[in-house]
Amino acid sequence: MPDKYKQRMARKKAHIDVRIEEANIDKGIIVLLTGNGKGKSSSALGMVCRALGHDMQIAIVKFLKGVQDTGEDAFLAQQPNVRTTCMKTGFTWDTQDREYDTQKACETWAVAEQYLKDASIDLVVIDELTYMINYKYLDEEKILNALKERPKKQHVVVTGRAASKALIEIADTVSILKDEKHAFRANIKAQKGIDI
Amino acid sequence: MPDKYKQRMARKKAHIDVRIEEANIDKGIIVLLTGNGKGKSSSALGMVCRALGHDMQIAIVKFLKGVQDTGEDAFLAQQPNVRTTCMKTGFTWDTQDREYDTQKACETWAVAEQYLKDASIDLVVIDELTYMINYKYLDEEKILNALKERPKKQHVVVTGRAASKALIEIADTVSILKDEKHAFRANIKAQKGIDI
Repeated sequence: MPDKYKQRMARKKAHIDVRIEEANIDKGIIVLLTGNGKGKSSSALGMVCRALGHDMQIAIVKFLKGVQDTGEDAFLAQQPNVRTTCMKTGFTWDTQDREYDTQKACETWAVAEQYLKDASIDLVVIDELTYMINYKYLDEEKILNALKERPKKQHVVVTGRAASKALIEIADTVSILKDEKHAFRANIKAQKGIDI
Repeated sequence: MPDKYKQRMARKKAHIDVRIEEANIDKGIIVLLTGNGKGKSSSALGMVCRALGHDMQIAIVKFLKGVQDTGEDAFLAQQPNVRTTCMKTGFTWDTQDREYDTQKACETWAVAEQYLKDASIDLVVIDELTYMINYKYLDEEKILNALKERPKKQHVVVTGRAASKALIEIADTVSILKDEKHAFRANIKAQKGIDI
């Protein structure tokens, strides 16, 4: 009797090997993590770690967040290859001031734009960017152009809920995180090492 | 004319503040990242960074992966607070040997089980666990029991496609990553700092 399992796996391997050989384009990509589920910024941070392991240069631009001191902040502050810029206004319901938020968003975007022109930076993370577009704090066209015209080898990771069609269009890899369940809804508070 | 924006945001803030106050349970949680989209293991790695920022103790158990040297491996090897165990067999189509895979899976799970009994470990990551259950390399009941009986403050992050109903049931936070788009399908190869 032939070993059917072995045969099936050998066929699968042959198919996958061909696909891997076909995928030979080498370029900077845009990864977009959107949807309401937990894990978008975490995922961006995980890619930062991979980049750190390759001794790459990383820039992180955070919109909205930054009122609270987090484990993430403490960790990033220790990494010589990472520069971080944070809007530090908290959420829109914290400031309750649209003009102030817009001004801060524009200032923060100006920094992101510099990173997106700098070929010495291998990975740019733009955290919670989608809200800035959806609230019209920032001009989407300007953002799309900056992304298009960035250095060819530079990777970008963008996070935030409800990404626009245009952002999905320009991205190379897009995951939509569905919020199937969240501990917060069971009255479990934000946990160190998980959420903060 | 009243400032409607400010009023709306103030109401939103009041609502959110109440919800944050209500969410006062403090306990170790299980986070499950499943679905076919990119970002599950990346997200687990991001939570590892948050935990590192809080000087927590971390254990990582990886099923399937480990044939290739990655930026992630290089990064983790530098972290004194992280211990890593890897099945190192690659994928099922690499070994093409069901018995060997099952044996390796059981050996790797035995290590995970020790971590899940050790209250000095604050965060246990079990990467690609779902496949081990779905391929019946490991007994699901045994896994569920080990998760249930772990130290009360210990967090666990589980990743892998097609998580079973029972895993979703036992987890506190579940995100299902939908694969909306992937660079690989556009023949872009796995990128350093993003995929490897």
